[in-house]
Amino acid sequence: MNKPTPIDHDVEERVRESFTCQNLINTLNGVIAHISPGELHIIAPFDERFTQQDGFLHAGVVTTLMDSACGYAAYTLMPENSRVLSVEFKVNFLSPAVGEHFRAEGRVVKSGKTISVCEGKFFALQDEGEKLVAMMQATMICIHDNGK
Amino acid sequence: MNKPTPIDHDVEERVRESFTCQNLINTLNGVIAHISPGELHIIAPFDERFTQQDGFLHAGVVTTLMDSACGYAAYTLMPENSRVLSVEFKVNFLSPAVGEHFRAEGRVVKSGKTISVCEGKFFALQDEGEKLVAMMQATMICIHDNGK
Amino acid sequence: MNKPTPIDHDVEERVRESFTCQNLINTLNGVIAHISPGELHIIAPFDERFTQQDGFLHAGVVTTLMDSACGYAAYTLMPENSRVLSVEFKVNFLSPAVGEHFRAEGRVVKSGKTISVCEGKFFALQDEGEKLVAMMQATMICIHDNGK
Amino acid sequence: MNKPTPIDHDVEERVRESFTCQNLINTLNGVIAHISPGELHIIAPFDERFTQQDGFLHAGVVTTLMDSACGYAAYTLMPENSRVLSVEFKVNFLSPAVGEHFRAEGRVVKSGKTISVCEGKFFALQDEGEKLVAMMQATMICIHDNGK
Repeated sequence: MNKPTPIDHDVEERVRESFTCQNLINTLNGVIAHISPGELHIIAPFDERFTQQDGFLHAGVVTTLMDSACGYAAYTLMPENSRVLSVEFKVNFLSPAVGEHFRAEGRVVKSGKTISVCEGKFFALQDEGEKLVAMMQATMICIHDNGK
Repeated sequence: MNKPTPIDHDVEERVRESFTCQNLINTLNGVIAHISPGELHIIAPFDERFTQQDGFLHAGVVTTLMDSACGYAAYTLMPENSRVLSVEFKVNFLSPAVGEHFRAEGRVVKSGKTISVCEGKFFALQDEGEKLVAMMQATMICIHDNGK
Repeated sequence: MNKPTPIDHDVEERVRESFTCQNLINTLNGVIAHISPGELHIIAPFDERFTQQDGFLHAGVVTTLMDSACGYAAYTLMPENSRVLSVEFKVNFLSPAVGEHFRAEGRVVKSGKTISVCEGKFFALQDEGEKLVAMMQATMICIHDNGK
Repeated sequence: MNKPTPIDHDVEERVRESFTCQNLINTLNGVIAHISPGELHIIAPFDERFTQQDGFLHAGVVTTLMDSACGYAAYTLMPENSRVLSVEFKVNFLSPAVGEHFRAEGRVVKSGKTISVCEGKFFALQDEGEKLVAMMQATMICIHDNGK
Protein backbone atom coordinates (compact mmCIF):
# COMPACT_ATOMS: atom_id res chain seq x y z
CA MET A 1 0.00 0.00 0.00
CA ASN A 2 2.49 2.59 1.25
CA LYS A 3 5.91 3.14 -0.23
CA PRO A 4 8.00 0.28 1.15
CA THR A 5 10.75 1.03 3.64
CA PRO A 6 14.10 0.58 1.92
CA ILE A 7 16.01 -2.41 3.23
CA ASP A 8 19.14 -2.11 5.34
CA HIS A 9 22.26 -2.64 3.22
CA ASP A 10 23.78 -5.32 5.46
CA VAL A 11 20.55 -7.27 5.61
CA GLU A 12 20.22 -7.17 1.84
CA GLU A 13 23.76 -8.43 1.41
CA ARG A 14 23.15 -11.26 3.87
CA VAL A 15 19.96 -12.28 2.07
CA ARG A 16 21.54 -12.15 -1.39
CA GLU A 17 24.54 -14.14 -0.20
CA SER A 18 22.34 -16.94 1.16
CA PHE A 19 20.13 -16.81 -1.93
CA THR A 20 23.17 -17.38 -4.16
CA CYS A 21 23.86 -20.59 -2.23
CA GLN A 22 20.51 -22.08 -3.22
CA ASN A 23 21.69 -24.30 -6.06
CA LEU A 24 18.14 -25.26 -6.95
CA ILE A 25 17.10 -21.65 -7.48
CA ASN A 26 20.14 -21.10 -9.68
CA THR A 27 19.28 -24.25 -11.61
CA LEU A 28 15.77 -22.79 -12.09
CA ASN A 29 17.34 -19.46 -13.19
CA GLY A 30 15.48 -17.60 -10.45
CA VAL A 31 16.61 -14.05 -9.64
CA ILE A 32 15.54 -11.63 -6.93
CA ALA A 33 13.26 -9.01 -8.48
CA HIS A 34 12.31 -7.11 -5.34
CA ILE A 35 13.51 -6.98 -1.77
CA SER A 36 12.20 -4.84 1.09
CA PRO A 37 11.72 -5.51 4.80
CA GLY A 38 9.34 -8.48 5.03
CA GLU A 39 8.90 -8.92 1.29
CA LEU A 40 10.83 -10.60 -1.53
CA HIS A 41 9.99 -11.47 -5.14
CA ILE A 42 11.69 -13.96 -7.45
CA ILE A 43 11.35 -14.04 -11.22
CA ALA A 44 12.10 -17.16 -13.26
CA PRO A 45 11.64 -18.11 -16.91
CA PHE A 46 9.64 -20.99 -18.32
CA ASP A 47 11.88 -24.00 -18.92
CA GLU A 48 10.88 -27.24 -20.63
CA ARG A 49 13.03 -29.26 -18.25
CA PHE A 50 10.73 -28.41 -15.36
CA THR A 51 7.29 -29.23 -16.73
CA GLN A 52 4.65 -31.75 -15.69
CA GLN A 53 2.79 -34.17 -17.96
CA ASP A 54 0.66 -31.50 -19.69
CA GLY A 55 3.58 -29.18 -20.48
CA PHE A 56 2.83 -26.67 -17.69
CA LEU A 57 5.45 -25.65 -15.15
CA HIS A 58 5.37 -28.40 -12.49
CA ALA A 59 3.52 -27.67 -9.22
CA GLY A 60 6.76 -28.53 -7.47
CA VAL A 61 8.61 -25.69 -9.18
CA VAL A 62 5.78 -23.28 -8.45
CA THR A 63 6.07 -24.35 -4.82
CA THR A 64 9.87 -24.13 -4.76
CA LEU A 65 9.88 -20.54 -5.94
CA MET A 66 7.14 -19.44 -3.51
CA ASP A 67 8.86 -21.27 -0.66
CA SER A 68 12.13 -19.45 -1.37
CA ALA A 69 10.36 -16.10 -1.74
CA CYS A 70 8.58 -16.63 1.60
CA GLY A 71 11.68 -17.94 3.38
CA TYR A 72 13.82 -15.00 2.29
CA ALA A 73 11.03 -12.51 2.99
CA ALA A 74 11.08 -13.84 6.56
CA TYR A 75 14.87 -13.78 6.59
CA THR A 76 14.92 -10.02 5.88
CA LEU A 77 13.45 -9.56 9.38
CA MET A 78 15.70 -12.03 11.21
CA PRO A 79 18.81 -11.05 13.17
CA GLU A 80 22.44 -11.57 12.17
CA ASN A 81 23.87 -15.04 12.82
CA SER A 82 20.54 -16.69 12.20
CA ARG A 83 19.28 -19.06 9.54
CA VAL A 84 15.79 -19.63 8.18
CA LEU A 85 14.14 -23.00 7.60
CA SER A 86 10.68 -23.98 6.35
CA VAL A 87 8.60 -25.63 9.07
CA GLU A 88 5.69 -26.27 6.73
CA PHE A 89 3.63 -24.78 3.94
CA LYS A 90 0.35 -25.29 2.16
CA VAL A 91 -0.29 -24.43 -1.48
CA ASN A 92 -3.48 -24.12 -3.51
CA PHE A 93 -3.21 -24.33 -7.28
CA LEU A 94 -5.65 -22.03 -9.07
CA SER A 95 -4.66 -22.06 -12.75
CA PRO A 96 -2.16 -23.91 -14.93
CA ALA A 97 1.33 -22.35 -14.82
CA VAL A 98 1.42 -21.22 -18.44
CA GLY A 99 3.63 -18.31 -19.46
CA GLU A 100 7.12 -17.26 -20.51
CA HIS A 101 8.02 -15.82 -17.14
CA PHE A 102 6.76 -16.25 -13.61
CA ARG A 103 6.93 -14.18 -10.44
CA ALA A 104 6.84 -15.65 -6.94
CA GLU A 105 6.02 -13.18 -4.18
CA GLY A 106 6.69 -13.81 -0.48
CA ARG A 107 5.34 -11.55 2.25
CA VAL A 108 5.60 -11.79 6.03
CA VAL A 109 2.23 -11.57 7.77
CA LYS A 110 3.53 -12.04 11.30
CA SER A 111 7.16 -11.99 12.35
CA GLY A 112 7.99 -13.56 15.69
CA LYS A 113 11.24 -14.29 17.52
CA THR A 114 11.06 -17.96 16.58
CA ILE A 115 8.15 -18.42 14.17
CA SER A 116 7.20 -16.27 11.18
CA VAL A 117 4.08 -16.71 9.10
CA CYS A 118 4.20 -15.77 5.43
CA GLU A 119 1.92 -15.72 2.42
CA GLY A 120 3.10 -16.44 -1.08
CA LYS A 121 1.58 -15.74 -4.46
CA PHE A 122 2.66 -17.05 -7.85
CA PHE A 123 1.88 -15.19 -11.06
CA ALA A 124 2.26 -16.19 -14.69
CA LEU A 125 3.39 -13.18 -16.71
CA GLN A 126 1.54 -13.41 -20.00
CA ASP A 127 1.06 -11.01 -22.91
CA GLU A 128 -2.51 -10.35 -21.77
CA GLY A 129 -1.36 -9.51 -18.26
CA GLU A 130 -0.64 -11.36 -15.06
CA LYS A 131 -2.50 -14.41 -13.86
CA LEU A 132 -2.59 -15.76 -10.32
CA VAL A 133 -1.44 -19.39 -10.54
CA ALA A 134 -1.07 -20.44 -6.91
CA MET A 135 -1.08 -19.22 -3.33
CA MET A 136 0.85 -20.38 -0.26
CA GLN A 137 0.51 -20.06 3.50
CA ALA A 138 3.84 -20.88 5.14
CA THR A 139 5.49 -21.17 8.56
CA MET A 140 9.20 -20.35 8.83
CA ILE A 141 11.51 -20.83 11.79
CA CYS A 142 14.53 -18.76 12.81
CA ILE A 143 17.52 -20.85 13.91
CA HIS A 144 19.85 -18.80 16.07
CA ASP A 145 23.44 -19.88 15.44
CA ASN A 146 25.48 -19.75 18.58
CA GLY A 147 28.56 -17.56 18.47
CA LYS A 148 31.79 -19.16 17.32
CA MET B 1 -0.23 -54.58 6.06
CA ASN B 2 -1.70 -57.17 3.69
CA LYS B 3 -0.09 -58.23 0.48
CA PRO B 4 -0.95 -55.47 -2.00
CA THR B 5 -3.30 -56.26 -4.85
CA PRO B 6 -1.33 -56.39 -8.10
CA ILE B 7 -2.14 -53.52 -10.42
CA ASP B 8 -4.04 -53.97 -13.66
CA HIS B 9 -1.65 -54.03 -16.63
CA ASP B 10 -3.45 -51.32 -18.62
CA VAL B 11 -3.60 -49.00 -15.63
CA GLU B 12 0.10 -49.47 -14.97
CA GLU B 13 0.92 -48.68 -18.59
CA ARG B 14 -1.23 -45.54 -18.50
CA VAL B 15 0.45 -44.35 -15.28
CA ARG B 16 3.97 -45.04 -16.54
CA GLU B 17 3.25 -43.29 -19.84
CA SER B 18 2.06 -40.13 -18.09
CA PHE B 19 4.94 -40.34 -15.61
CA THR B 20 7.44 -40.36 -18.47
CA CYS B 21 5.95 -37.08 -19.69
CA GLN B 22 6.88 -35.31 -16.43
CA ASN B 23 10.03 -33.57 -17.61
CA LEU B 24 10.75 -32.30 -14.12
CA ILE B 25 10.77 -35.81 -12.65
CA ASN B 26 13.11 -36.94 -15.42
CA THR B 27 15.34 -33.93 -14.73
CA LEU B 28 15.39 -35.02 -11.08
CA ASN B 29 16.20 -38.61 -12.18
CA GLY B 30 13.13 -39.94 -10.38
CA VAL B 31 12.01 -43.48 -11.17
CA ILE B 32 8.97 -45.47 -10.08
CA ALA B 33 10.03 -47.96 -7.42
CA HIS B 34 6.62 -49.37 -6.53
CA ILE B 35 3.16 -49.27 -8.02
CA SER B 36 -0.01 -50.90 -6.73
CA PRO B 37 -3.66 -49.77 -6.64
CA GLY B 38 -3.70 -46.55 -4.62
CA GLU B 39 0.01 -46.46 -3.91
CA LEU B 40 3.14 -45.34 -5.76
CA HIS B 41 6.76 -44.78 -4.72
CA ILE B 42 9.45 -42.77 -6.49
CA ILE B 43 13.19 -43.07 -5.84
CA ALA B 44 15.62 -40.29 -6.74
CA PRO B 45 19.33 -39.70 -6.06
CA PHE B 46 20.90 -36.76 -4.26
CA ASP B 47 22.02 -34.12 -6.76
CA GLU B 48 24.02 -30.99 -5.96
CA ARG B 49 22.06 -28.98 -8.51
CA PHE B 50 18.93 -29.25 -6.41
CA THR B 51 20.12 -28.18 -2.95
CA GLN B 52 19.21 -25.28 -0.69
CA GLN B 53 21.60 -22.91 1.08
CA ASP B 54 22.84 -25.49 3.62
CA GLY B 55 23.57 -28.19 1.04
CA PHE B 56 20.46 -30.29 1.81
CA LEU B 57 18.01 -31.33 -0.89
CA HIS B 58 15.67 -28.32 -1.32
CA ALA B 59 12.23 -28.46 0.30
CA GLY B 60 10.81 -27.80 -3.16
CA VAL B 61 12.32 -31.01 -4.54
CA VAL B 62 11.12 -32.98 -1.54
CA THR B 63 7.66 -31.57 -2.26
CA THR B 64 7.85 -32.22 -6.00
CA LEU B 65 8.60 -35.90 -5.52
CA MET B 66 5.88 -36.39 -2.90
CA ASP B 67 3.38 -34.49 -5.05
CA SER B 68 4.11 -36.75 -8.02
CA ALA B 69 3.96 -39.87 -5.87
CA CYS B 70 0.58 -38.79 -4.46
CA GLY B 71 -0.80 -37.67 -7.82
CA TYR B 72 0.09 -40.93 -9.53
CA ALA B 73 -1.09 -42.98 -6.55
CA ALA B 74 -4.47 -41.29 -7.05
CA TYR B 75 -4.24 -41.80 -10.81
CA THR B 76 -3.96 -45.59 -10.38
CA LEU B 77 -7.59 -45.51 -9.19
CA MET B 78 -8.96 -43.14 -11.82
CA PRO B 79 -10.79 -44.26 -14.97
CA GLU B 80 -9.47 -44.28 -18.53
CA ASN B 81 -9.62 -40.96 -20.37
CA SER B 82 -9.04 -39.00 -17.22
CA ARG B 83 -6.23 -36.80 -15.98
CA VAL B 84 -5.07 -35.97 -12.48
CA LEU B 85 -4.22 -32.50 -11.15
CA SER B 86 -3.12 -31.27 -7.73
CA VAL B 87 -5.78 -29.12 -6.07
CA GLU B 88 -3.59 -28.37 -3.06
CA PHE B 89 -1.15 -29.91 -0.63
CA LYS B 90 0.43 -29.22 2.72
CA VAL B 91 3.88 -30.38 3.75
CA ASN B 92 5.65 -30.54 7.13
CA PHE B 93 9.43 -30.78 7.15
CA LEU B 94 10.74 -32.95 9.97
CA SER B 95 14.48 -33.44 9.31
CA PRO B 96 17.03 -32.14 6.80
CA ALA B 97 16.99 -34.06 3.51
CA VAL B 98 20.45 -35.59 3.84
CA GLY B 99 21.29 -38.83 2.06
CA GLU B 100 22.46 -40.39 -1.18
CA HIS B 101 19.02 -41.55 -2.22
CA PHE B 102 15.47 -40.60 -1.32
CA ARG B 103 12.11 -42.32 -1.52
CA ALA B 104 8.80 -40.47 -1.90
CA GLU B 105 5.71 -42.52 -1.07
CA GLY B 106 2.19 -41.57 -2.11
CA ARG B 107 -0.87 -43.36 -0.75
CA VAL B 108 -4.59 -42.75 -1.36
CA VAL B 109 -6.58 -42.39 1.87
CA LYS B 110 -9.93 -41.69 0.21
CA SER B 111 -10.70 -42.05 -3.46
CA GLY B 112 -13.77 -40.22 -4.73
CA LYS B 113 -15.27 -39.71 -8.17
CA THR B 114 -13.93 -36.15 -8.33
CA ILE B 115 -11.70 -35.61 -5.30
CA SER B 116 -9.05 -37.95 -3.87
CA VAL B 117 -7.17 -37.37 -0.63
CA CYS B 118 -3.63 -38.72 -0.33
CA GLU B 119 -0.84 -38.83 2.16
CA GLY B 120 2.82 -38.63 1.22
CA LYS B 121 5.97 -39.52 3.09
CA PHE B 122 9.56 -38.71 2.16
CA PHE B 123 12.48 -40.80 3.41
CA ALA B 124 16.22 -40.25 3.24
CA LEU B 125 17.95 -43.57 2.60
CA GLN B 126 21.11 -43.49 4.69
CA ASP B 127 23.66 -46.12 5.67
CA GLU B 128 22.21 -46.24 9.16
CA GLY B 129 18.72 -46.81 7.85
CA GLU B 130 15.81 -44.72 6.66
CA LYS B 131 14.86 -41.37 8.09
CA LEU B 132 11.49 -39.64 7.71
CA VAL B 133 12.20 -36.21 6.20
CA ALA B 134 8.76 -34.82 5.42
CA MET B 135 5.07 -35.65 5.25
CA MET B 136 2.30 -34.40 2.96
CA GLN B 137 -1.49 -34.27 3.02
CA ALA B 138 -2.78 -33.65 -0.53
CA THR B 139 -6.02 -33.21 -2.46
CA MET B 140 -6.11 -34.42 -6.08
CA ILE B 141 -8.82 -33.89 -8.67
CA CYS B 142 -9.84 -36.17 -11.53
CA ILE B 143 -10.47 -34.34 -14.80
CA HIS B 144 -12.69 -36.40 -17.07
CA ASP B 145 -11.71 -35.85 -20.70
CA ASN B 146 -14.73 -35.89 -22.93
CA GLY B 147 -15.03 -38.25 -25.82
CA LYS B 148 -12.60 -38.21 -28.74
CA MET C 1 -10.58 -2.01 -3.02
CA ASN C 2 -13.55 -0.89 -5.13
CA LYS C 3 -17.03 -0.44 -3.83
CA PRO C 4 -18.40 -3.96 -3.57
CA THR C 5 -21.13 -5.03 -5.95
CA PRO C 6 -24.40 -5.37 -4.05
CA ILE C 7 -25.54 -8.96 -3.75
CA ASP C 8 -28.54 -10.34 -5.60
CA HIS C 9 -31.58 -10.50 -3.32
CA ASP C 10 -32.38 -14.17 -4.00
CA VAL C 11 -28.80 -15.22 -3.42
CA GLU C 12 -28.68 -13.34 -0.14
CA GLU C 13 -31.88 -15.01 1.00
CA ARG C 14 -30.55 -18.44 0.08
CA VAL C 15 -27.30 -17.81 1.97
CA ARG C 16 -29.07 -16.47 5.06
CA GLU C 17 -31.49 -19.39 5.08
CA SER C 18 -28.68 -21.94 5.02
CA PHE C 19 -26.72 -19.94 7.59
CA THR C 20 -29.65 -20.07 10.00
CA CYS C 21 -29.54 -23.87 9.78
CA GLN C 22 -26.00 -23.99 11.17
CA ASN C 23 -26.82 -24.86 14.75
CA LEU C 24 -23.20 -24.52 15.79
CA ILE C 25 -22.99 -20.94 14.55
CA ASN C 26 -26.19 -20.13 16.43
CA THR C 27 -24.76 -21.78 19.54
CA LEU C 28 -21.69 -19.54 19.13
CA ASN C 29 -24.00 -16.52 18.66
CA GLY C 30 -22.46 -15.75 15.28
CA VAL C 31 -24.27 -13.30 13.01
CA ILE C 32 -23.62 -12.19 9.44
CA ALA C 33 -22.06 -8.73 9.51
CA HIS C 34 -21.37 -8.32 5.81
CA ILE C 35 -22.39 -10.08 2.64
CA SER C 36 -21.43 -9.26 -0.95
CA PRO C 37 -20.62 -11.44 -3.97
CA GLY C 38 -17.65 -13.58 -2.96
CA GLU C 39 -17.31 -12.17 0.55
CA LEU C 40 -18.97 -12.75 3.92
CA HIS C 41 -18.14 -11.68 7.47
CA ILE C 42 -19.40 -13.15 10.75
CA ILE C 43 -19.24 -11.41 14.12
CA ALA C 44 -19.40 -13.34 17.40
CA PRO C 45 -18.93 -12.40 21.05
CA PHE C 46 -16.42 -13.82 23.50
CA ASP C 47 -18.00 -16.63 25.54
CA GLU C 48 -16.39 -18.45 28.46
CA ARG C 49 -17.94 -21.74 27.40
CA PHE C 50 -15.73 -21.81 24.31
CA THR C 51 -12.27 -21.16 25.70
CA GLN C 52 -9.08 -23.24 25.79
CA GLN C 53 -6.86 -23.89 28.80
CA ASP C 54 -5.46 -20.33 29.02
CA GLY C 55 -8.84 -18.61 28.83
CA PHE C 56 -8.54 -17.55 25.17
CA LEU C 57 -11.17 -18.39 22.58
CA HIS C 58 -10.36 -21.95 21.45
CA ALA C 59 -8.54 -22.41 18.13
CA GLY C 60 -11.44 -24.66 17.13
CA VAL C 61 -13.95 -21.82 17.47
CA VAL C 62 -11.68 -19.46 15.57
CA THR C 63 -11.53 -22.09 12.84
CA THR C 64 -15.27 -22.76 12.90
CA LEU C 65 -16.14 -19.11 12.31
CA MET C 66 -13.57 -18.68 9.51
CA ASP C 67 -14.70 -21.94 7.90
CA SER C 68 -18.31 -20.75 7.88
CA ALA C 69 -17.33 -17.29 6.59
CA CYS C 70 -15.31 -18.89 3.76
CA GLY C 71 -17.96 -21.49 2.95
CA TYR C 72 -20.74 -18.93 2.68
CA ALA C 73 -18.51 -16.50 0.78
CA ALA C 74 -18.10 -19.28 -1.77
CA TYR C 75 -21.80 -20.07 -1.64
CA THR C 76 -22.70 -16.50 -2.71
CA LEU C 77 -21.19 -17.37 -6.12
CA MET C 78 -22.74 -20.82 -6.49
CA PRO C 79 -25.87 -21.55 -8.52
CA GLU C 80 -29.35 -22.32 -7.20
CA ASN C 81 -29.95 -25.91 -6.13
CA SER C 82 -26.40 -26.34 -5.01
CA ARG C 83 -24.79 -26.89 -1.62
CA VAL C 84 -21.35 -26.03 -0.36
CA LEU C 85 -19.02 -28.30 1.61
CA SER C 86 -15.51 -27.84 2.98
CA VAL C 87 -12.99 -30.06 1.20
CA GLU C 88 -10.13 -28.93 3.43
CA PHE C 89 -8.61 -25.92 5.12
CA LYS C 90 -5.38 -24.85 6.76
CA VAL C 91 -5.14 -22.31 9.55
CA ASN C 92 -2.21 -20.42 11.06
CA PHE C 93 -2.62 -18.94 14.52
CA LEU C 94 -0.82 -15.63 14.93
CA SER C 95 -1.98 -14.19 18.28
CA PRO C 96 -4.13 -15.33 21.19
CA ALA C 97 -7.86 -14.80 20.57
CA VAL C 98 -8.38 -12.19 23.28
CA GLY C 99 -11.23 -9.70 22.99
CA GLU C 100 -14.89 -9.06 23.62
CA HIS C 101 -15.92 -9.55 20.02
CA PHE C 102 -14.42 -11.25 17.01
CA ARG C 103 -14.87 -10.94 13.26
CA ALA C 104 -14.27 -13.78 10.82
CA GLU C 105 -13.88 -12.74 7.20
CA GLY C 106 -14.21 -15.09 4.23
CA ARG C 107 -13.22 -14.10 0.71
CA VAL C 108 -13.24 -16.07 -2.55
CA VAL C 109 -9.91 -15.93 -4.37
CA LYS C 110 -10.88 -18.24 -7.21
CA SER C 111 -14.37 -19.46 -7.98
CA GLY C 112 -14.66 -22.52 -10.18
CA LYS C 113 -17.55 -24.67 -11.31
CA THR C 114 -16.65 -27.39 -8.82
CA ILE C 115 -13.85 -26.06 -6.63
CA SER C 116 -13.55 -22.63 -4.98
CA VAL C 117 -10.51 -21.39 -3.12
CA CYS C 118 -11.03 -18.93 -0.27
CA GLU C 119 -8.99 -17.04 2.25
CA GLY C 120 -10.17 -16.33 5.77
CA LYS C 121 -9.01 -13.85 8.36
CA PHE C 122 -9.95 -13.67 12.04
CA PHE C 123 -9.76 -10.44 14.00
CA ALA C 124 -10.09 -9.73 17.72
CA LEU C 125 -11.96 -6.47 18.20
CA GLN C 126 -10.28 -4.77 21.14
CA ASP C 127 -10.46 -1.28 22.59
CA GLU C 128 -7.07 -0.46 21.09
CA GLY C 129 -8.19 -1.56 17.66
CA GLU C 130 -8.34 -4.77 15.68
CA LYS C 131 -5.80 -7.54 15.90
CA LEU C 132 -5.24 -10.30 13.36
CA VAL C 133 -5.59 -13.59 15.27
CA ALA C 134 -5.53 -16.23 12.55
CA MET C 135 -5.61 -16.79 8.81
CA MET C 136 -7.07 -19.60 6.71
CA GLN C 137 -6.62 -20.96 3.20
CA ALA C 138 -9.59 -23.15 2.29
CA THR C 139 -10.95 -25.30 -0.54
CA MET C 140 -14.73 -25.52 -0.94
CA ILE C 141 -16.72 -27.79 -3.25
CA CYS C 142 -20.04 -27.12 -4.91
CA ILE C 143 -22.45 -30.06 -4.78
CA HIS C 144 -25.04 -29.78 -7.54
CA ASP C 145 -28.34 -31.17 -6.32
CA ASN C 146 -30.14 -32.89 -9.15
CA GLY C 147 -33.45 -31.53 -10.27
CA LYS C 148 -36.62 -32.46 -8.37
CA MET D 1 2.10 -51.56 16.67
CA ASN D 2 3.82 -52.57 19.86
CA LYS D 3 2.24 -52.40 23.28
CA PRO D 4 2.30 -48.73 24.16
CA THR D 5 4.61 -47.58 26.92
CA PRO D 6 2.53 -46.67 29.96
CA ILE D 7 2.54 -42.95 30.65
CA ASP D 8 4.33 -41.44 33.63
CA HIS D 9 1.87 -40.67 36.43
CA ASP D 10 2.92 -37.04 36.87
CA VAL D 11 2.71 -36.36 33.15
CA GLU D 12 -0.76 -37.88 32.96
CA GLU D 13 -1.92 -35.72 35.88
CA ARG D 14 -0.50 -32.59 34.25
CA VAL D 15 -2.24 -33.39 30.94
CA ARG D 16 -5.58 -34.17 32.58
CA GLU D 17 -5.42 -31.00 34.66
CA SER D 18 -4.86 -28.81 31.60
CA PHE D 19 -7.51 -30.75 29.65
CA THR D 20 -10.08 -30.01 32.34
CA CYS D 21 -9.42 -26.30 31.83
CA GLN D 22 -10.52 -26.45 28.21
CA ASN D 23 -14.02 -25.10 28.61
CA LEU D 24 -14.84 -25.76 24.97
CA ILE D 25 -14.02 -29.45 25.26
CA ASN D 26 -16.20 -29.67 28.35
CA THR D 27 -18.97 -27.86 26.50
CA LEU D 28 -18.62 -30.48 23.75
CA ASN D 29 -18.68 -33.25 26.41
CA GLY D 30 -15.33 -34.55 25.24
CA VAL D 31 -13.48 -37.01 27.49
CA ILE D 32 -10.03 -38.56 27.27
CA ALA D 33 -10.40 -42.15 26.10
CA HIS D 34 -6.73 -43.04 25.77
CA ILE D 35 -3.46 -41.53 26.85
CA SER D 36 0.08 -42.83 26.30
CA PRO D 37 3.38 -41.12 25.51
CA GLY D 38 2.84 -39.24 22.25
CA GLU D 39 -0.77 -40.30 21.77
CA LEU D 40 -4.16 -39.17 23.08
CA HIS D 41 -7.75 -39.93 22.08
CA ILE D 42 -10.92 -37.98 22.86
CA ILE D 43 -14.46 -39.33 22.62
CA ALA D 44 -17.48 -37.06 22.29
CA PRO D 45 -21.17 -37.66 21.63
CA PHE D 46 -23.26 -36.29 18.79
CA ASP D 47 -25.05 -33.10 19.86
CA GLU D 48 -27.63 -31.18 17.83
CA ARG D 49 -26.29 -27.86 19.08
CA PHE D 50 -23.07 -28.38 17.15
CA THR D 51 -24.29 -29.28 13.68
CA GLN D 52 -23.91 -27.60 10.29
CA GLN D 53 -26.65 -26.89 7.77
CA ASP D 54 -27.18 -30.54 6.75
CA GLY D 55 -27.42 -31.87 10.30
CA PHE D 56 -23.90 -33.34 10.42
CA LEU D 57 -21.43 -32.49 13.15
CA HIS D 58 -19.85 -29.18 12.04
CA ALA D 59 -16.37 -29.30 10.48
CA GLY D 60 -15.33 -26.85 13.19
CA VAL D 61 -16.17 -29.32 15.95
CA VAL D 62 -14.40 -32.13 14.12
CA THR D 63 -11.39 -29.85 13.92
CA THR D 64 -11.62 -28.74 17.55
CA LEU D 65 -11.54 -32.30 18.83
CA MET D 66 -8.63 -33.33 16.60
CA ASP D 67 -6.73 -30.16 17.50
CA SER D 68 -7.10 -30.92 21.20
CA ALA D 69 -6.17 -34.57 20.72
CA CYS D 70 -3.04 -33.54 18.79
CA GLY D 71 -2.11 -30.74 21.18
CA TYR D 72 -2.35 -32.98 24.26
CA ALA D 73 -0.59 -35.85 22.47
CA ALA D 74 2.31 -33.42 21.96
CA TYR D 75 1.99 -32.20 25.55
CA THR D 76 2.57 -35.73 26.91
CA LEU D 77 6.16 -35.43 25.61
CA MET D 78 6.83 -31.88 26.82
CA PRO D 79 8.69 -31.02 30.01
CA GLU D 80 7.24 -29.70 33.26
CA ASN D 81 6.56 -25.96 33.37
CA SER D 82 5.73 -25.83 29.70
CA ARG D 83 2.58 -25.11 27.78
CA VAL D 84 1.44 -26.24 24.34
CA LEU D 85 -0.06 -24.04 21.63
CA SER D 86 -1.23 -24.77 18.08
CA VAL D 87 0.97 -23.08 15.49
CA GLU D 88 -1.15 -24.28 12.59
CA PHE D 89 -3.07 -27.24 11.26
CA LYS D 90 -4.58 -28.51 8.05
CA VAL D 91 -7.64 -30.73 7.84
CA ASN D 92 -9.14 -32.77 5.01
CA PHE D 93 -12.78 -33.82 5.30
CA LEU D 94 -13.44 -37.26 3.85
CA SER D 95 -17.00 -38.18 4.86
CA PRO D 96 -19.91 -36.48 6.63
CA ALA D 97 -19.62 -36.64 10.44
CA VAL D 98 -22.64 -38.87 11.00
CA GLY D 99 -22.86 -41.01 14.11
CA GLU D 100 -23.82 -41.14 17.77
CA HIS D 101 -20.27 -40.94 19.03
CA PHE D 102 -16.98 -39.77 17.61
CA ARG D 103 -13.34 -40.42 18.40
CA ALA D 104 -10.56 -37.95 17.73
CA GLU D 105 -7.05 -39.42 17.75
CA GLY D 106 -3.87 -37.37 18.05
CA ARG D 107 -0.42 -38.85 17.50
CA VAL D 108 3.04 -37.25 17.57
CA VAL D 109 5.06 -37.97 14.43
CA LYS D 110 8.09 -35.89 15.40
CA SER D 111 8.72 -34.37 18.79
CA GLY D 112 11.26 -31.55 18.93
CA LYS D 113 12.42 -29.20 21.66
CA THR D 114 10.33 -26.36 20.26
CA ILE D 115 8.20 -27.77 17.44
CA SER D 116 6.21 -31.00 17.38
CA VAL D 117 4.42 -32.38 14.34
CA CYS D 118 1.28 -34.45 14.87
CA GLU D 119 -1.30 -36.28 12.85
CA GLY D 120 -4.94 -36.46 13.78
CA LYS D 121 -7.73 -38.77 12.70
CA PHE D 122 -11.45 -38.43 13.34
CA PHE D 123 -13.77 -41.43 13.33
CA ALA D 124 -17.54 -41.69 13.44
CA LEU D 125 -18.54 -44.64 15.59
CA GLN D 126 -21.53 -46.20 13.87
CA ASP D 127 -23.40 -49.45 14.32
CA GLU D 128 -21.77 -50.84 11.20
CA GLY D 129 -18.31 -49.97 12.47
CA GLU D 130 -15.98 -47.00 12.42
CA LYS D 131 -15.70 -44.56 9.57
CA LEU D 132 -12.82 -42.17 8.93
CA VAL D 133 -14.35 -38.68 8.76
CA ALA D 134 -11.34 -36.37 8.63
CA MET D 135 -7.58 -36.21 8.97
CA MET D 136 -5.28 -33.49 10.29
CA GLN D 137 -1.61 -32.59 9.99
CA ALA D 138 -0.66 -30.17 12.78
CA THR D 139 2.29 -28.20 14.14
CA MET D 140 2.45 -27.57 17.88
CA ILE D 141 4.85 -25.35 19.81
CA CYS D 142 6.19 -25.82 23.33
CA ILE D 143 6.23 -22.60 25.38
CA HIS D 144 8.74 -22.89 28.21
CA ASP D 145 7.49 -20.98 31.23
CA ASN D 146 10.37 -19.37 33.04
CA GLY D 147 11.04 -19.95 36.68
CA LYS D 148 8.34 -19.77 39.37
